[in-house]
Amino acid sequence: MIFAKKLAEALNMKNLFADRVLNNSTADLDEIFKNSANPENISFSGGFPDNHLFPEADLKQAYQDAITNDGPAIFQYQTTQGPLALRKKIAARMQQHAEVPTTANEVMLTQGGQQAIDLVAKLVLNHGDAMIVEGPTYMGALAAFDTYEPTYYEVPVDQHGMDIRVLRKTLRQHPEIKLIYTVPDFHNPTGTTMSIKRRQELVALANQYNCLILEDSPYRDLRYNGKSVPAVKHFDTEGRVIFISSFSKILSPALRTGWLVADEHLMTELINLKSAIDVQSPNVTLAAVNTYLDEHDLDAHIAKLNAAYKVKRDAMLTAMDRYFPKNVQYTRPNGGFFIWVTLPDNVDAHELLTDVILPQAHVAYVPSSCQFASRKVKNGFRLNYTSLAPVTITRGIQRLGALLQPQAAANLQTAIQF
Amino acid sequence: MIFAKKLAEALNMKNLFADRVLNNSTADLDEIFKNSANPENISFSGGFPDNHLFPEADLKQAYQDAITNDGPAIFQYQTTQGPLALRKKIAARMQQHAEVPTTANEVMLTQGGQQAIDLVAKLVLNHGDAMIVEGPTYMGALAAFDTYEPTYYEVPVDQHGMDIRVLRKTLRQHPEIKLIYTVPDFHNPTGTTMSIKRRQELVALANQYNCLILEDSPYRDLRYNGKSVPAVKHFDTEGRVIFISSFSKILSPALRTGWLVADEHLMTELINLKSAIDVQSPNVTLAAVNTYLDEHDLDAHIAKLNAAYKVKRDAMLTAMDRYFPKNVQYTRPNGGFFIWVTLPDNVDAHELLTDVILPQAHVAYVPSSCQFASRKVKNGFRLNYTSLAPVTITRGIQRLGALLQPQAAANLQTAIQF
Repeated sequence: MIFAKKLAEALNMKNLFADRVLNNSTADLDEIFKNSANPENISFSGGFPDNHLFPEADLKQAYQDAITNDGPAIFQYQTTQGPLALRKKIAARMQQHAEVPTTANEVMLTQGGQQAIDLVAKLVLNHGDAMIVEGPTYMGALAAFDTYEPTYYEVPVDQHGMDIRVLRKTLRQHPEIKLIYTVPDFHNPTGTTMSIKRRQELVALANQYNCLILEDSPYRDLRYNGKSVPAVKHFDTEGRVIFISSFSKILSPALRTGWLVADEHLMTELINLKSAIDVQSPNVTLAAVNTYLDEHDLDAHIAKLNAAYKVKRDAMLTAMDRYFPKNVQYTRPNGGFFIWVTLPDNVDAHELLTDVILPQAHVAYVPSSCQFASRKVKNGFRLNYTSLAPVTITRGIQRLGALLQPQAAANLQTAIQF
Repeated sequence: MIFAKKLAEALNMKNLFADRVLNNSTADLDEIFKNSANPENISFSGGFPDNHLFPEADLKQAYQDAITNDGPAIFQYQTTQGPLALRKKIAARMQQHAEVPTTANEVMLTQGGQQAIDLVAKLVLNHGDAMIVEGPTYMGALAAFDTYEPTYYEVPVDQHGMDIRVLRKTLRQHPEIKLIYTVPDFHNPTGTTMSIKRRQELVALANQYNCLILEDSPYRDLRYNGKSVPAVKHFDTEGRVIFISSFSKILSPALRTGWLVADEHLMTELINLKSAIDVQSPNVTLAAVNTYLDEHDLDAHIAKLNAAYKVKRDAMLTAMDRYFPKNVQYTRPNGGFFIWVTLPDNVDAHELLTDVILPQAHVAYVPSSCQFASRKVKNGFRLNYTSLAPVTITRGIQRLGALLQPQAAANLQTAIQF
């Protein structure tokens, strides 16, 4: 970012960039993906599904059949909202998997869940508008929100999800808050799931303080233990919850096929905004996803994913129990992609990564600082377990744990936060 | 828009929308596409390629081969900028077709040309920032720019492109202008092409007044007469021109595969912005386009398109010469998708469409008002000739011409503008 700024200054073009670009301090997601691609490293940093679990042959067949069945119209412009047949299927899944009665008119296809975040931010946020994010939160959401230059208020997350007492206090102090962003299911980055009680309280507070809730739930179907809870939108009484999810984690991220569920008074505007951003999503892809859902049992595929990812999660937790120092804390998620690690207070996980862990252990994680809107919490990091083989996970955690030992030993007196 | 506003008001949620949404008066592109889809109408309104000219079998094969060749990695996250192999091919096309020496690092894949417009607007425009658009201009670009709430200055277009004298005067009066948006090749909506001399003058003025130029050129390869001229970016001396184009009009719009060419000091920021918007474009689609380009001669396909579209353009112009009143003026483009019609001064083309043309002739066009940032010019409209068969074009123009005759007769004394 600074480099680009200097180049632009040298060319006398600095004053041509918008403030949203000049002020941007967001970690570059692309950098993390590049880092993950380095074959020398064992990377726990990306949020990647397992390459070996993509239903490659089935998707290939779905592309073929979609093109054969739809004929040349598949290559023409279609609607911004997305094909009705696919929206109907998603609406049915919303009822079945999230307990949210949904019509096809309340569904819009988006370029992954990420575009849905950008769309909602664009719908709601003027420069300086107040919003709530969890601390920590999904760094890609921060990247999207940052470009609308909001005023962030951060609400901590514990093992039952967003801390509602802090939320209530924040809303009381800042009734101008317009938007609450939450990842309630297998939260990115902590892996924790919001309790039913807190979901109800969250909706009640949004009603009371006239806020919208953006419920981001890409990991919902990837549960390895325990019983599913209804979506936050299940408890929505006033059309204040916008629910977003995606096929990225349950089918393939390269399809860039996500969706957004919103009541119609919001949907009209969201469609207009998407039309101005990219006209529509690629129809061949959407038709292929629709055909895949016609030809195959996605839930059977998800069951396969869950069996495989459970083994990986268990491998990581087992290795952490064995190799991590006792005063390093971590979550024990029932699903999703991530485990969150809390180091002793005065350890900077970002410095530790670049100075010690990457060069000596060749292991990568995502440090906490870029996962807090405040950028202030430095002693945590996120681990992903879905993309690697169990044996690689164990080896990586062993190497990581060995280098955490001296850090922990130097900080034995520190209180544990999480 | 007003409807949504009222609903939101009723729900006490009006104050939750951003100003960019509440102030938006842009014509809805999606509405135009829906209107075009009504089988009762002969629609000249959309900017659709001909369904019958998509290389359906070749694209189907390309999807198959791409998935077979790339293996499961094709379904995984890749980079935001897009696959190197495809960026190299686009860089080579930039040299060959636009006379712009380009490296793969200077190319980014986008969701159609539309997303590239949104990205550049997001890079440059703070609320209220000054920019130049042509009058008339591409309404989808206005929709994208509108969401960043710029201050527009409009420069008229004549048969040689943007009027550089007006541009110079506007820049002198408003040196704070940051961005100049132009469609120099077979302009949307007028079909005219900017002369070489004006391209040189445009770049010189951007250098003098420290502006960026956004050169939007999706129709460049669709030339039916005359000799190609170099892109505006060919004349760029200071890295001020961002060139965008797309496979939408020369291959298929449903692929949503466009590209942006920018110098590296701009590219870094543009990649970061795209990453925050949708992480990346769908890799299966990009790999399929790349494979299509490996397996087939795109230029041979474009030659076929040009032969077919020339017949359609000629059919439309011949019918207009025959059936349109003499005091209705129109352009005679050498390529692209559109003809621009100017009615006598005091005719409102939008009222005429909804009150007379649609109900009586069942013919649709895009009225001028939504194609001017000022919304002030009401006596023009855009006709598309690529999507329909020549016989349908002739029939539609005959029906339209018959209803224009009384309008024209009532306004014989009016001066002709275009």
